[in-house]
Amino acid sequence: MKTLAALVFPEFQTLDLFGPLEMFGDLDDEIEVTVVAEKAEPVVSRHGQYISVDKTLSQSSTYDLILIPGGRGTPVENKNSAINDWIIEAEKHAQFIMAVCTGGALLATTGLLDGRRATTNKQDFIWSKPFGPCVDWVTQARWVKDGKFYTSSGVSAGIDMSLAVISSLFGNETAEKIALETEYDWHRDPDWDPFAKHHGLV
Amino acid sequence: MKTLAALVFPEFQTLDLFGPLEMFGDLDDEIEVTVVAEKAEPVVSRHGQYISVDKTLSQSSTYDLILIPGGRGTPVENKNSAINDWIIEAEKHAQFIMAVCTGGALLATTGLLDGRRATTNKQDFIWSKPFGPCVDWVTQARWVKDGKFYTSSGVSAGIDMSLAVISSLFGNETAEKIALETEYDWHRDPDWDPFAKHHGLV
Repeated sequence: MKTLAALVFPEFQTLDLFGPLEMFGDLDDEIEVTVVAEKAEPVVSRHGQYISVDKTLSQSSTYDLILIPGGRGTPVENKNSAINDWIIEAEKHAQFIMAVCTGGALLATTGLLDGRRATTNKQDFIWSKPFGPCVDWVTQARWVKDGKFYTSSGVSAGIDMSLAVISSLFGNETAEKIALETEYDWHRDPDWDPFAKHHGLV
Repeated sequence: MKTLAALVFPEFQTLDLFGPLEMFGDLDDEIEVTVVAEKAEPVVSRHGQYISVDKTLSQSSTYDLILIPGGRGTPVENKNSAINDWIIEAEKHAQFIMAVCTGGALLATTGLLDGRRATTNKQDFIWSKPFGPCVDWVTQARWVKDGKFYTSSGVSAGIDMSLAVISSLFGNETAEKIALETEYDWHRDPDWDPFAKHHGLV
């Protein structure tokens, strides 16, 4: 059984979190999902829904998989040291760390992506880059894998990245089965990214 | 300002709900989303996350838009009369009623789809049909519109349907803008459905 910590903070982007959780959640015999946050109270999404917290950050930083959503609540401009320190601790144990959308900017602020390739939301790409001045930002990619770090483009791209992680962990047949069951048109190519061009990045 | 009631019940399918809420939620100047359930306590999704309830069914059935997810918790085999009666009441006021995945089977049990065209999850298509013996079930469709009723195929199909509803309510430019912002590869054709063939329905 693998453990997955899904980090939430006020105004996290709804689909950044729940797209991946739909995919990983289908493997409930293989993966135990824990929603983690700084405080124990329910946390509001960007779209106003409140989600319960299973464990606070201080309770554990030991998980196999870490999922970091983005969204307008992403604590990057006013750095949240509790969240930053937790990510740095969690990285030591984690097999894979995944960041969706501007969650990549948050991950970059920890320094863990320094010298690594990563991507982020394409609409907010220029805004995101300064949070990781030593990151090799990839302008055109649905998602990027570098070592244990997976970073995806904006919002729905997290679903494609999650299926790639599932394929890597449990085999391609398992990932294809989940895509089929969720009737999801999985973009299997990490370089597929029409949105980069739209935002003038290529 | 339009109002949208998102119905939840224990073990609703995560993406059936949060895919559409990501799309409608981006219009927070135009649409007010209310999570509704039979009881006031937080409701667990199919994948173990608890979501807070804004209003109980008995508090109101007057909303412009109704969203009904599916999932293995869909109360169809053991009919839930509180939910059934609420849908029948809500339909009288609603401009559009949307059902995602096996939420279509739930909507069918109310009789409101009798004599109408509708679709549902393709993997569970044969299982769903008897819940609406007088429904004209469409075997190959991403989503189907008949009058005020929109029904979609499984899980991720709800996102495509939601964008079609947004296009109808607020114009195509608005729907395209949301698809772009969420970096979502919107299937604009309601007849696009490779999953029907996979499940031997065509």
